[in-house]
Amino acid sequence: MPELLYPLDSSKRFTDQKFVGHNRWHPDIPAAVTVRPGDEFRVHVREWFDGAIHNDDSADDVRNAPLSSVHCLSGPFAVEGAEPGDLLIVDILDIGPVPQEDSGPLAGQGWGYTGIFATDNGGGFLTEHFPDAYKAIWDFSGHTTTSRHIPGVKFTGIMHPGLMGTAPSADLLSTWNAREAALIATDPERVPPLALPPEPRDAILGSLTGPEFDRVAAEAARTAPPRENGGNQDIKNLTRGSRVFYPVFVDGAKLSVGDLHFSQGDGEITFCGAIEMGGFIDLRVDVIKNGMQLYGVTENAVFLPGNEGPVYSEWLAFSGTSVTLDGEQRYLDSQLAFERACLHAIDYLTNFGYSREQAYLLLGAAPIEGRFSGVVDIPNSCATVYIPTAIFDFPIAPTASGPVRIDPGIGAPRTAR
Amino acid sequence: MPELLYPLDSSKRFTDQKFVGHNRWHPDIPAAVTVRPGDEFRVHVREWFDGAIHNDDSADDVRNAPLSSVHCLSGPFAVEGAEPGDLLIVDILDIGPVPQEDSGPLAGQGWGYTGIFATDNGGGFLTEHFPDAYKAIWDFSGHTTTSRHIPGVKFTGIMHPGLMGTAPSADLLSTWNAREAALIATDPERVPPLALPPEPRDAILGSLTGPEFDRVAAEAARTAPPRENGGNQDIKNLTRGSRVFYPVFVDGAKLSVGDLHFSQGDGEITFCGAIEMGGFIDLRVDVIKNGMQLYGVTENAVFLPGNEGPVYSEWLAFSGTSVTLDGEQRYLDSQLAFERACLHAIDYLTNFGYSREQAYLLLGAAPIEGRFSGVVDIPNSCATVYIPTAIFDFPIAPTASGPVRIDPGIGAPRTAR
Amino acid sequence: MPELLYPLDSSKRFTDQKFVGHNRWHPDIPAAVTVRPGDEFRVHVREWFDGAIHNDDSADDVRNAPLSSVHCLSGPFAVEGAEPGDLLIVDILDIGPVPQEDSGPLAGQGWGYTGIFATDNGGGFLTEHFPDAYKAIWDFSGHTTTSRHIPGVKFTGIMHPGLMGTAPSADLLSTWNAREAALIATDPERVPPLALPPEPRDAILGSLTGPEFDRVAAEAARTAPPRENGGNQDIKNLTRGSRVFYPVFVDGAKLSVGDLHFSQGDGEITFCGAIEMGGFIDLRVDVIKNGMQLYGVTENAVFLPGNEGPVYSEWLAFSGTSVTLDGEQRYLDSQLAFERACLHAIDYLTNFGYSREQAYLLLGAAPIEGRFSGVVDIPNSCATVYIPTAIFDFPIAPTASGPVRIDPGIGAPRTAR
Amino acid sequence: MPELLYPLDSSKRFTDQKFVGHNRWHPDIPAAVTVRPGDEFRVHVREWFDGAIHNDDSADDVRNAPLSSVHCLSGPFAVEGAEPGDLLIVDILDIGPVPQEDSGPLAGQGWGYTGIFATDNGGGFLTEHFPDAYKAIWDFSGHTTTSRHIPGVKFTGIMHPGLMGTAPSADLLSTWNAREAALIATDPERVPPLALPPEPRDAILGSLTGPEFDRVAAEAARTAPPRENGGNQDIKNLTRGSRVFYPVFVDGAKLSVGDLHFSQGDGEITFCGAIEMGGFIDLRVDVIKNGMQLYGVTENAVFLPGNEGPVYSEWLAFSGTSVTLDGEQRYLDSQLAFERACLHAIDYLTNFGYSREQAYLLLGAAPIEGRFSGVVDIPNSCATVYIPTAIFDFPIAPTASGPVRIDPGIGAPRTAR
Repeated sequence: MPELLYPLDSSKRFTDQKFVGHNRWHPDIPAAVTVRPGDEFRVHVREWFDGAIHNDDSADDVRNAPLSSVHCLSGPFAVEGAEPGDLLIVDILDIGPVPQEDSGPLAGQGWGYTGIFATDNGGGFLTEHFPDAYKAIWDFSGHTTTSRHIPGVKFTGIMHPGLMGTAPSADLLSTWNAREAALIATDPERVPPLALPPEPRDAILGSLTGPEFDRVAAEAARTAPPRENGGNQDIKNLTRGSRVFYPVFVDGAKLSVGDLHFSQGDGEITFCGAIEMGGFIDLRVDVIKNGMQLYGVTENAVFLPGNEGPVYSEWLAFSGTSVTLDGEQRYLDSQLAFERACLHAIDYLTNFGYSREQAYLLLGAAPIEGRFSGVVDIPNSCATVYIPTAIFDFPIAPTASGPVRIDPGIGAPRTAR
Repeated sequence: MPELLYPLDSSKRFTDQKFVGHNRWHPDIPAAVTVRPGDEFRVHVREWFDGAIHNDDSADDVRNAPLSSVHCLSGPFAVEGAEPGDLLIVDILDIGPVPQEDSGPLAGQGWGYTGIFATDNGGGFLTEHFPDAYKAIWDFSGHTTTSRHIPGVKFTGIMHPGLMGTAPSADLLSTWNAREAALIATDPERVPPLALPPEPRDAILGSLTGPEFDRVAAEAARTAPPRENGGNQDIKNLTRGSRVFYPVFVDGAKLSVGDLHFSQGDGEITFCGAIEMGGFIDLRVDVIKNGMQLYGVTENAVFLPGNEGPVYSEWLAFSGTSVTLDGEQRYLDSQLAFERACLHAIDYLTNFGYSREQAYLLLGAAPIEGRFSGVVDIPNSCATVYIPTAIFDFPIAPTASGPVRIDPGIGAPRTAR
Repeated sequence: MPELLYPLDSSKRFTDQKFVGHNRWHPDIPAAVTVRPGDEFRVHVREWFDGAIHNDDSADDVRNAPLSSVHCLSGPFAVEGAEPGDLLIVDILDIGPVPQEDSGPLAGQGWGYTGIFATDNGGGFLTEHFPDAYKAIWDFSGHTTTSRHIPGVKFTGIMHPGLMGTAPSADLLSTWNAREAALIATDPERVPPLALPPEPRDAILGSLTGPEFDRVAAEAARTAPPRENGGNQDIKNLTRGSRVFYPVFVDGAKLSVGDLHFSQGDGEITFCGAIEMGGFIDLRVDVIKNGMQLYGVTENAVFLPGNEGPVYSEWLAFSGTSVTLDGEQRYLDSQLAFERACLHAIDYLTNFGYSREQAYLLLGAAPIEGRFSGVVDIPNSCATVYIPTAIFDFPIAPTASGPVRIDPGIGAPRTAR
Repeated sequence: MPELLYPLDSSKRFTDQKFVGHNRWHPDIPAAVTVRPGDEFRVHVREWFDGAIHNDDSADDVRNAPLSSVHCLSGPFAVEGAEPGDLLIVDILDIGPVPQEDSGPLAGQGWGYTGIFATDNGGGFLTEHFPDAYKAIWDFSGHTTTSRHIPGVKFTGIMHPGLMGTAPSADLLSTWNAREAALIATDPERVPPLALPPEPRDAILGSLTGPEFDRVAAEAARTAPPRENGGNQDIKNLTRGSRVFYPVFVDGAKLSVGDLHFSQGDGEITFCGAIEMGGFIDLRVDVIKNGMQLYGVTENAVFLPGNEGPVYSEWLAFSGTSVTLDGEQRYLDSQLAFERACLHAIDYLTNFGYSREQAYLLLGAAPIEGRFSGVVDIPNSCATVYIPTAIFDFPIAPTASGPVRIDPGIGAPRTAR
């Protein structure tokens, strides 16, 4: 309901809009809009690939997705009076797909997608096990969704922005670039890479032009990782009703937002694991003066999650420990333990007729929970993953009669490397 | 209500009971009790240190805790007809502290404890930041608890067994010992160690005696880590009403249980992070013949968590990424990201008057949730930790007026290394 | 997102729209729109008084509200193939206030209202105790709301249609008119009346005109009561995600909807107790052929409520029994028991500084739960009312230190009879 | 865990115990035990009929149940320092069936019962439709229960005391007796009666004897109805973790408790609708001095319900209005509307194979919710009843394929009038 301060026209490309957004982090990207503390406003958001992924039955688009162009962010929004050292309060008042556009070429126009990215073009959590590109299309019906590529499931979306944050200061940006370059230097040829350095190609920097554009493009940080400013945190609980507190590093805070998700499992495990969509987000901003010192919050977001998500009473859970598939014992490695728990869940679901890729895509998109269960019991971390049983239209828990078999349908479209 | 098949006398040591339990994993530890599929029965469980930790205001007992003696497990329980390849169904019917013993020297007799263990005697998740031993005592009142060492909080316990599992086969045991030895060999002098090898000293092996005791004691695996048989998973959601499916590796399955927790946060981050207690657990067992193949569950527990835990509507959450405190960028390391999120939460709580150790102990014991939020956004994993705001008797969310200050009381007892 | 099949222009009166709705029930009101089973579509809905209640600080509009003009319903929607004996499935896909109109003269344009109606113009549940007209205005911010007339509270709306249903058959309509006339005849002069007979004045009957209009206006049932066709059930749990099954009494089912509420307490106790608004509702319809017989559902709605409402973990509850305020013992009268429980809650809230009218208005509008607790313990029914404590920004439970006192602000506007 | 202050021996009758309880309300029944504010203690509680109902397949015991002997209450407990005008805080720390007695002749020893009482011996909510006596036995397994008399359902108990309260003052008792006598006088021969007058026969009055016994027995109020002192409120949400505030009418407050339920639906609609059991309850008491005036709570309990009950995400709901089965329109009668909603639910369940009596017994015992939905829409109240779908092991919602048919088994034992 709030005033639309940042419109996007669905018939035009992200770079041809009234306000041109950005796809890099830099303190010198000019604010597109200025708001005051207490203001409520609507922001249109483009899906992260600006329409490169289509509502069809091929994974070619995922195979060749233009990774240097992401994420299409709306903003920056300058907040009057916000100064470094403050905390920026951001209330997520509402969020949804593209209003009143029930079909169209853009994700968010009545549909969304989940992708498994090929190892040499993005990769993902389990890329060693899933090296090729796959895709699933999800159709929206109100707040619920189904997929022709993954039959037998239906669930309510817990919509959230995958990416939101404030602009880094010049110092903070330098810190990012330095530490990530140092990591890349340890294995520069790795596929997928260890990190993504600044990339002027395909950079979009708001209203910047000319030499200033070139300077900023050469310095600006990529948007893939979450960092001190929030960023691509992919926190599935940042739903409607959430209040987030971001550190302010530059005058005006310069808030940006993008990468809306219709739904996501904890971890967003398939890289493009959420159900990606464009749409709108209604925000309210406010400022806690000197909040970073008052509360000792100098980096990363603190937040009060919303309380409108669906509640599930029954879950089927899987556990994993930090032993590799080859049997090597690792030391307290929760990343590995979570990988093993997810693989257990995937293997389990194949007993019901799903392909491994369908199961993987489902775990990325459905509202599963991924938990740190034990992180101190040397040498094994224990991670657990919880799947709400109500999303399946068949019984999913183990019984003496064995698993039912569903018709997996046409399956998830695949394109090999 | 079910028949008490495994009694413990609170006035006697763990080794002086009618049934002597065990504190190592080995296929040849004889079953203490045999039950049939469908049976319901009560099991008494001793707290993991058999009374070495006291209800007092000193951390000396934690400083010197006898780690080679843990965990005091009840069992094994042989289940008639269970064979390798089956899945063992274990229903947790009920669980609680020591019934009708409201005070006494054993944790579980109306009280429990949480400990931060010294780096050279156990360590813990954040041992680099908390090298000394600390302790908090929690008093039970029905299903709620408070601590004189951490004022201002009160919460409902979500009681669960930290450790439950089936006996490994001889092959599986060999695999464990081999892979853990290989890890230890990479840094044999490390403090705390990378893993714990078999340790005959302080081994308790049920009814075994003589040369058989010595053989088994030399081979048997330590109980600290979770492994393929379940074990010390510290899954805080294994509450009353849960149904767990364990792989069966030996005839009779040989189920054992121990390490009861009155409450725990996801991760059990202070090593002895839960509120430790002895007490009882009521179980029902059943068997899915050939279940390991039917459902592809060949390792680690699958489970349906109980639905009786308290529901919280409001949470304060913290996020962290895989950058070290020194600013080094690590690659998709969720263990580190969770560490950073927990440190953020600890730092935050100190603004209200808590010491860092009080905050750390609280996060281990209270029903916090630890989530994998982003595990694919190279190079930064994002982890989040959620604290229910209702456990505090003062407002805990950031506001423009700044944090209230509480009286931290006597604080958590400390004993330096 | 679905296609807008039933638009309303906020700048025009309800009777000047492309489709003119209706405010009476009759089988012969022509369908405005025809849809097919499986169709999803958006419907605009006008607030029940078509703008007669204003966003101001006077209750004059409530005092003089045009009760003969309600409820402004959108529809009827004919569903192809639906026949008497079928069940009509209605999925509530989404619902909200007037999109993108953040301010304006109509409830639903960024605000809503709750009213206590005067005894001689509407009355209400506690009209003997509250004979005068009062009003509270609620401002919307995303899915939350606050009121300048009731300070100290904020809550998340659980939006729902207060009124939805299918058209009655001619026989059913006759039954209604006969039984309600018989009731009125027992005390025809009562104020407020026992029921409302057909009223041609102010009748709106879709596209009907001329003699047919006059015939139908003389026969058509008022929309105030819930009846066999659903109707004004005021079920606060018919939120987004709900699936409702309505009996079909006429060809095409002829579904109509209206009386949207931003929030409501169980019972809608102040008559106009919900937060009234206009807005939109997205529906999906389907048909179960012969469903009335298949499931024995021949009257009143059966439904699966949505699962997106906020979850509250803490409630303060009040109880009442079927003894009148004068001390007269009634026999198992849950209506009275609920009245007494509500009065207890109102009295309680005045200890914190609220006026009785503020408390009454709050109980109508906030997501309170009203329960039948005991209906068999002769002679006293027991009813209970539950208030979520989190909606208050001050502590509301009894403690030894007594209630805090808030500033009740300007209070609720009043207009005496 | 707290000290057992009020033991009962399962092998002895209620009147042969160390402490003899009571089954009437009177200020002069002497306190059995005195406790202090802050004390925690365990109380044993006998099932309300002291063993008259058996674990068998006949309803003869229900047919002939000794109604003049109920309810067997434990207490009174005097609280030091509590005076008229105070509020008594009662925390329900824990509650359960008879510990460690898994089988036996008393309800609570591993089993419980639900009964439909014959019209001329108790009656019930729907006694006009169910005039004969029926019974269902429920077997307990941990916190879940199943019934051989109602197959296809399983649910988690939300255990609670059906009856708890403080002693009335002499004045309050007189008020009760006067107003109930006045009601009885309006139709003294009614079956079932409108209310129950004092009944010396079968009175149990603690330690009273001789003339004092006779005097008190002649005056003391029956325990069936809930009244100003709390009493038989049958509030199913008074579960573990609840805090109740009772008005204090006599020195010491004289708290009593009984009528434990393993589970109950809102309304306890079959009269003996809950799953009746004996067992234990752990309480903590405290006093708010002058609390009745401080908070304006002079009658009926105020309470904070516990938050440990199971959460259900999916419900099937039924609605009803205040029109009689004969088609007579009543004015805003929620008791009738709830009756109609319950009848709709019962009729619905018979489509799946249940008998009407099985359905009725189930609605009394399972954790259904009964809500006041609309109480102001003249002339029809609207009431709704919600059944959690997860309690059935077959799909219960309407679909195009029609209802599945279950085997109703042996059915519910019946004994005709």
